[in-house]
Amino acid sequence: MTTSSHWVLTLDCPDRPGIVHAVTGAVAAAQGNITELQQFSSIDTGRFFMRVQVQTGFERSSFEESLAPLAAYLQATWTLDEVGRRRRTLILASKAAHCVNDLLFRQRSGLLPLEVVGVMANHPDLRPLATFYGVDFRDFVVLPETKAAFEADVLRRVEEDDVELVVLARYMQILSPELCRALAGRAINIHHSFLPGFKGANPYRQAHERGVKLIGATAHFVTPDLDEGPIIEQNVTRVDHTLDVHQLVARGQEQETRTLAEAVRLYAERRVFLDGPRTVIFA
Amino acid sequence: MTTSSHWVLTLDCPDRPGIVHAVTGAVAAAQGNITELQQFSSIDTGRFFMRVQVQTGFERSSFEESLAPLAAYLQATWTLDEVGRRRRTLILASKAAHCVNDLLFRQRSGLLPLEVVGVMANHPDLRPLATFYGVDFRDFVVLPETKAAFEADVLRRVEEDDVELVVLARYMQILSPELCRALAGRAINIHHSFLPGFKGANPYRQAHERGVKLIGATAHFVTPDLDEGPIIEQNVTRVDHTLDVHQLVARGQEQETRTLAEAVRLYAERRVFLDGPRTVIFA
Amino acid sequence: MTTSSHWVLTLDCPDRPGIVHAVTGAVAAAQGNITELQQFSSIDTGRFFMRVQVQTGFERSSFEESLAPLAAYLQATWTLDEVGRRRRTLILASKAAHCVNDLLFRQRSGLLPLEVVGVMANHPDLRPLATFYGVDFRDFVVLPETKAAFEADVLRRVEEDDVELVVLARYMQILSPELCRALAGRAINIHHSFLPGFKGANPYRQAHERGVKLIGATAHFVTPDLDEGPIIEQNVTRVDHTLDVHQLVARGQEQETRTLAEAVRLYAERRVFLDGPRTVIFA
Amino acid sequence: MTTSSHWVLTLDCPDRPGIVHAVTGAVAAAQGNITELQQFSSIDTGRFFMRVQVQTGFERSSFEESLAPLAAYLQATWTLDEVGRRRRTLILASKAAHCVNDLLFRQRSGLLPLEVVGVMANHPDLRPLATFYGVDFRDFVVLPETKAAFEADVLRRVEEDDVELVVLARYMQILSPELCRALAGRAINIHHSFLPGFKGANPYRQAHERGVKLIGATAHFVTPDLDEGPIIEQNVTRVDHTLDVHQLVARGQEQETRTLAEAVRLYAERRVFLDGPRTVIFA
Repeated sequence: MTTSSHWVLTLDCPDRPGIVHAVTGAVAAAQGNITELQQFSSIDTGRFFMRVQVQTGFERSSFEESLAPLAAYLQATWTLDEVGRRRRTLILASKAAHCVNDLLFRQRSGLLPLEVVGVMANHPDLRPLATFYGVDFRDFVVLPETKAAFEADVLRRVEEDDVELVVLARYMQILSPELCRALAGRAINIHHSFLPGFKGANPYRQAHERGVKLIGATAHFVTPDLDEGPIIEQNVTRVDHTLDVHQLVARGQEQETRTLAEAVRLYAERRVFLDGPRTVIFA
Repeated sequence: MTTSSHWVLTLDCPDRPGIVHAVTGAVAAAQGNITELQQFSSIDTGRFFMRVQVQTGFERSSFEESLAPLAAYLQATWTLDEVGRRRRTLILASKAAHCVNDLLFRQRSGLLPLEVVGVMANHPDLRPLATFYGVDFRDFVVLPETKAAFEADVLRRVEEDDVELVVLARYMQILSPELCRALAGRAINIHHSFLPGFKGANPYRQAHERGVKLIGATAHFVTPDLDEGPIIEQNVTRVDHTLDVHQLVARGQEQETRTLAEAVRLYAERRVFLDGPRTVIFA
Repeated sequence: MTTSSHWVLTLDCPDRPGIVHAVTGAVAAAQGNITELQQFSSIDTGRFFMRVQVQTGFERSSFEESLAPLAAYLQATWTLDEVGRRRRTLILASKAAHCVNDLLFRQRSGLLPLEVVGVMANHPDLRPLATFYGVDFRDFVVLPETKAAFEADVLRRVEEDDVELVVLARYMQILSPELCRALAGRAINIHHSFLPGFKGANPYRQAHERGVKLIGATAHFVTPDLDEGPIIEQNVTRVDHTLDVHQLVARGQEQETRTLAEAVRLYAERRVFLDGPRTVIFA
Repeated sequence: MTTSSHWVLTLDCPDRPGIVHAVTGAVAAAQGNITELQQFSSIDTGRFFMRVQVQTGFERSSFEESLAPLAAYLQATWTLDEVGRRRRTLILASKAAHCVNDLLFRQRSGLLPLEVVGVMANHPDLRPLATFYGVDFRDFVVLPETKAAFEADVLRRVEEDDVELVVLARYMQILSPELCRALAGRAINIHHSFLPGFKGANPYRQAHERGVKLIGATAHFVTPDLDEGPIIEQNVTRVDHTLDVHQLVARGQEQETRTLAEAVRLYAERRVFLDGPRTVIFA
């Protein structure tokens, strides 16, 4: 019995000639039809990145078997997934609703291939919103003395629910270096400034004081270095001297929601690769 | 004797499985190293498009020989060119200087891989500018009764000077259907509106009357249907109620220059493909 | 007893010298402090437009009394309102949720000064969303034979609930010329294209067929001429050849929501004036 | 004998109620017709800023006489100038041609109201360009031991030629604190990054290393604190992982030229005010 399926293959390995030919050979051996193909050789790191979408009647196991020897030969990190599969996602939040509302709305509308397994928050405010969207919501008191327990809960949740992506949707606490490392490459934060400008707290206040003419938002991978993780997506919007800090915050929310949503979409569709301190994005 | 060179291969053929594998096989046979690869299968037309940059020590003729049988088998239209080779370009102009100035400046600065063989204009105004950049300039009186002769001159110039691209840099006359067809896929026009809005004459006046909040520019291939050719690039900029037609014209010039320059860059780097009434752009 | 209040005064009259001086004189007579002032003289129509924000300890009636004689002398249409007052708004909708969700979320977050009195829809789908936000929802079967009754209901609702603004949030039916005229200058529609390109039905399909490189959305006042009303706000986003119609629709939703939200904000803050077929926007 | 003229009046003073009324009263006394009016009260500094364009048959001296007592009463800094008068401008440059070419082209085209009195450069490369545009060009060897002499030449030039604006059009040397202070509020620099990100040298290299997704340019007033002066204008453009530092430089040039041109236009039209460390821009 054959069933036609649509697969996305990602691959990341030391660069060398012939990789595209070899990979597309494996695709051809699986009678696959390529619907999308992108590749990049990083001069800075010497690594090669590839993303291929393939339609094939082969079963997953057969396709994997035809790819595995090649991947081993190339010393590649690789994944094979169904196109459009909803990625299991955990959201960390505080009080601010805009990013959480946007992600849950896009999930329900089918605009984002997510299955949000839950929202964990250090405030109860977003419970009604999560409940409306049928998403499990738990709130915690996160104080210095309870932070370690909360983070252990997060990690347990990630493991028990097979979470593939943790989204910090304006979660207003700093994660411990241990948790950052445990979630390396799997946790995306939205920072409310155009990094590297205005790192840290109160970026809109900083932006107002500096008198910038554009404000922005940056979605990046979480790392132990605050606001220094690899950047996935950035956007800006024009502002002027008439806007006070409160108004900058309001204007910035729109950039935060769209920037985070786009970063999550790119990640969920396996279009984001880590290349040292930078990302490769096959948009 | 081997010399390492950097090639760009483009290919356009009926879609079928295995093309990427086959082409990259020919690249591998030429001991080539892929530095850039993009491909697209058009659902609308059933055609496949590919652009590959390859570094190889093979000579051009050897590389061509390894590609020719494959291209024949695929019934492909294909080109093989050196990366960065300056494309032979003829500019048609009238009185407006902004696009011509921008193209010639970018040529000199190395920002555009062009070799402008000349400017042909229906007014003498731009002679000093062309002369400053060392570009041949000829002006013509283009009236109803002399238009056919002028167009014959253009075509002769295209043939004698091996012109690969004709740029209508705010050339304010309509080309005859015959010339449009003779230059099909080789002539780019800049229209001073965001097409399909405001076709024809005086688009800024039309934009003012309609009260739009963004004005734009569109670079497109020239076809016998006025302002209906396949679109290569578009940009817009924000305007408001305070701007009169004269000011819209001034604001629009910046969009015209950057839009035309980007379209010319994409074409010169062989990143533009025709897919029926649309373009495929490997940006 | 004096209470300090923040007022917004708008004024629209035939242009003549001295209006700003006269109006600011009335403000001074009311011991007012100007916090924002914008004015525009339209060359095309000979009309003058002004919006002033004033802080004053005067009561509303006293302030009005000091303004009324001047307004009469200037033959001005004028309004005096509290800054930040939530404008009574009726939403018309169909099945699409994105604009309604965005407007209701922004209302609750205080990002839009609206008091949505209800959602009237020709489908029941958005009932849970409206209910979550505590907004009255009524659905109707709108067929050729029931359309007149539905529109009568809309008008009755507008009158009974003192509705100041009707928002067509992707309401997929055409209003009758009578209703358009009855709501002239009070009804805003979001059209899912960059007008005047792609009027009418299926604009994303039209955009795909034409191969444009930017798609957009336009918020405009409703008039009997379909998609021809005065434009309030427009936005675009970049697209390419890889996106099919379905994907254009998804990308376009973000532009629709932000464009409609911005138009509604401008209207609610009394920043939008009609100047013949165009708008004057004091952003 | 009366001649109708178009004036621009700017005014900057401690904020207090009634300023707009008083100023428009002086305008009315001069039988002036306001064609444009903008004002702003800065909460942060307590200062008031105003720009008015006025058409009047009064002679300059009469108009000034009607304004002077008011300005004195308001303790205002004020200027009265003709709308569209070309401002006397000195350009400092090095080798890079793009900004100088753009400014001189816009001057000639009438897109910028400038009268460039000369280009002073620390390299001879741009002599032909300046000569083509009929602009005096002088090059200097600027070394540590000659820098003071060069800067004295600049200052002498500013004084002797009544220079109103000094533009650092990618002038690659740091001005001494003394010169910065002498030119305070009269010298505009273009920095090739989106400040406050990537201050100092090699911003495109920094941008590449950080992996940002947008690069930009910032036009700001020159102050003794490097790249910390009040920002006038900023723009960004999208980039991705495929671009090396050399390509970022090329892409960034377009942002540099348009950002500097816009800042110079705003300044030349007297739309830029200093409000402590920020600017007020009446765009």
